[in-house]
Amino acid sequence: MPGRKIEIKARKEVASRTARLDAVFAALADPTRRAIIERLSRGEARVTEVAEPFHMSLNAVSKHIRVLEASGVVARHRKGRDHILSVNARSLDEVDGWILRMRGYWEKRLDAMERLLYELGKDRKLAPKDRKHGSR
Amino acid sequence: MPGRKIEIKARKEVASRTARLDAVFAALADPTRRAIIERLSRGEARVTEVAEPFHMSLNAVSKHIRVLEASGVVARHRKGRDHILSVNARSLDEVDGWILRMRGYWEKRLDAMERLLYELGKDRKLAPKDRKHGSR
Repeated sequence: MPGRKIEIKARKEVASRTARLDAVFAALADPTRRAIIERLSRGEARVTEVAEPFHMSLNAVSKHIRVLEASGVVARHRKGRDHILSVNARSLDEVDGWILRMRGYWEKRLDAMERLLYELGKDRKLAPKDRKHGSR
Repeated sequence: MPGRKIEIKARKEVASRTARLDAVFAALADPTRRAIIERLSRGEARVTEVAEPFHMSLNAVSKHIRVLEASGVVARHRKGRDHILSVNARSLDEVDGWILRMRGYWEKRLDAMERLLYELGKDRKLAPKDRKHGSR
């Protein structure tokens, strides 16, 4: 049944997108990890360079870096003996897309409320004059 | 020392903004909580209405709702005996701002890289003709 195969594939894609969103949002929910992303946003750097400004052990910073790598926001490559970290510029696309979608809903509702308030205001201003027509 | 007071106030503001960002990102790092936000984005609803589509106990959904309320993304008000939930349309502003700032950095770097690649391409095309001038 090819239809069923497509359905299973689509479900798997949704599941992995959901898991990616979970991982990226969780990765961003920590000030040290956000600071690491800010640092790497200005340019790639060695693990030791990234760890330097933080008042914590290299081991503690490394744990945060591993969370960022697992979420796909940060990538690591080797240059000789050094481990170089960089940000993955496409990793926030899905997170961004989700937030934009929510904003879209909310803005539509805010627009509708504004229109309603505007109409109510218009009616109130017209009411004394128009009352005799009895339409409202 | 008024300068010191201003400094302490500024630090407190940064600390509370940081805590809000932590709370909102953590709140969004769960598929049930994101689904609740999507539901409430289409209009306010009672707690029982929000819980209905989920295959979990009312108690489990209530816990997720409390996390969303603590982060400021969802608000609750009472209408008679009902608890009505709604989304706070301004709650994603800081999260959005942070993501936009990162994107800003990255896009600048991507632009710079593109320019560099373009310049390298231009040089390469010119190279055979220009070699005799010996500037490169």
